Amino acid sequence: MGIGIDLGGTTIKGGVVNDQGIILVERLVKTRSHLGYSHVLGDLIKLIEELQLLSPEEQVIGIGIPGILSVDGGTIVSCPNLQWENIPLKRDLEQALSTAVLLVNDATAACIAEAAFGSTRGKANSVMITLGTGVGGGVIINNRIISGAQGVASEIGHMLMEENFYRCGCGKNGCLETFASATAMIRYCHLRINQGYDSTLRSIEDFDGEAIMDAAKAGDSLAEEAVNRLANYLGWAIANINDIINPESFTIGGGLSYAGEFLLEKIQAEAIKRLTYPQYAVPEMVLARFKNEAGMIGAANLGSFI
Amino acid sequence: MGIGIDLGGTTIKGGVVNDQGIILVERLVKTRSHLGYSHVLGDLIKLIEELQLLSPEEQVIGIGIPGILSVDGGTIVSCPNLQWENIPLKRDLEQALSTAVLLVNDATAACIAEAAFGSTRGKANSVMITLGTGVGGGVIINNRIISGAQGVASEIGHMLMEENFYRCGCGKNGCLETFASATAMIRYCHLRINQGYDSTLRSIEDFDGEAIMDAAKAGDSLAEEAVNRLANYLGWAIANINDIINPESFTIGGGLSYAGEFLLEKIQAEAIKRLTYPQYAVPEMVLARFKNEAGMIGAANLGSFI
Repeated sequence: MGIGIDLGGTTIKGGVVNDQGIILVERLVKTRSHLGYSHVLGDLIKLIEELQLLSPEEQVIGIGIPGILSVDGGTIVSCPNLQWENIPLKRDLEQALSTAVLLVNDATAACIAEAAFGSTRGKANSVMITLGTGVGGGVIINNRIISGAQGVASEIGHMLMEENFYRCGCGKNGCLETFASATAMIRYCHLRINQGYDSTLRSIEDFDGEAIMDAAKAGDSLAEEAVNRLANYLGWAIANINDIINPESFTIGGGLSYAGEFLLEKIQAEAIKRLTYPQYAVPEMVLARFKNEAGMIGAANLGSFI
Repeated sequence: MGIGIDLGGTTIKGGVVNDQGIILVERLVKTRSHLGYSHVLGDLIKLIEELQLLSPEEQVIGIGIPGILSVDGGTIVSCPNLQWENIPLKRDLEQALSTAVLLVNDATAACIAEAAFGSTRGKANSVMITLGTGVGGGVIINNRIISGAQGVASEIGHMLMEENFYRCGCGKNGCLETFASATAMIRYCHLRINQGYDSTLRSIEDFDGEAIMDAAKAGDSLAEEAVNRLANYLGWAIANINDIINPESFTIGGGLSYAGEFLLEKIQAEAIKRLTYPQYAVPEMVLARFKNEAGMIGAANLGSFI
């Protein structure tokens, strides 16, 4: 049992999570990052105190962060969504709450949720890839999360694939994220539409990743091209990760994964093409079980995976 | 203390290795793989029995193999150098010797040797890349070797980079091995020479990787181009591996690594260009301490890393 917080760019979600991974109580507030760190810290403290009052017993507190943590897990080194750098969040929360607080990357939290109660339950080794605005990653080896010697492991979205037509926010040109995120698909479709390519997407103002998935399912050829492109690079990245750590399972999560088997089958086919030993070693590739609640459930269970 | 065997395509080397990683006794025989498995097995048994007689106490026996092992570590699933497939080597040796035998991939054995007594001593997380005829890999996380859920982890040489002018023995076009091995450099130099490119290598019959390294050090522009190409792809692979597991250290070993700092500096520069957080997270990149003896030393210490 624990309290799990998902600190996102738009909302802070918190839940009391029981030993079966069920959220017993849930609360959310807007993330007022424009008001600065101390306001967000204050909102976090209030939210956690409220959950503590509602919770039947004393709880471990885990917090999922959309960014990079220091090696000791106490400081947020970089969190572009909140425009934070070198924020000692663990220290500040522990001083205010008099309770131990653990921080974790948000995609790693999702990986924990799946390993504890979801698609990779009972598997000691798994890799999570979350497909949303960006591409996030989580890696669990021998039942422990891998955050790296310098805290920068599981940055799967920033693996360099090949040159692309735009540069990633990380500064590199050709990261997986620029080929395999909702942003990547949207930019690619706009590029092709501007080149004169016809598509049902032209009639949708400000189409998003979901609209592209839907159009692809309905047979729109540009949308299909964009989805196939995403699957191509994801399959390639999965095959390369498999050459390094060969986990039991790769889990596809995040908003784009709601497209379901339609997307998963494409990714599987592209990965198998590039596996080194497809004849006897195909890792499992599955859809995540949890959606928006993954971060809370994983953060609440962080203690069992460190 | 243990007995470590390095079962190579040309020779079988065996040694009694003490607790400081020093080889007390060493023996070698030719690998007569052309005579078939039973002959090689017989030679292996003889070699091990001889080492057992020369060894001061009862020993664990570890054997490094240039191939892929089954998940239980008992069967050689594929070993192209010896033309072996599905060979139950552990069972056959244990029946003959009445002693426990452990098998390990040879590059993983080299990774163990470095972690136990060499360049990554005391580091819980390290990645080894061996540059020889092919490109081998070893991965240690939390002081345990990573062989993968299906036994195909640490196949760093088969990470897919981009299209190349020839196909890898694994069947894929564009593996790291086709850009960053001695074979890759030799083929690249022949290609460029056939295209009319001038080089001091033209005067060397059947030049090898070492000759290319030497020519590059002496300022030959084609040889330098070949070495820079190798460093470029290795740096890229290191950056991508760092995005996944961010180990404390990458160790460069194998025959080509004898070129020393000249090569290492190029690889470091290429990796740093592609790291996601070069401003605060540059993993250590070092040269291996051990050379031909790495396999024996690592195999003898396998028991401490599983």
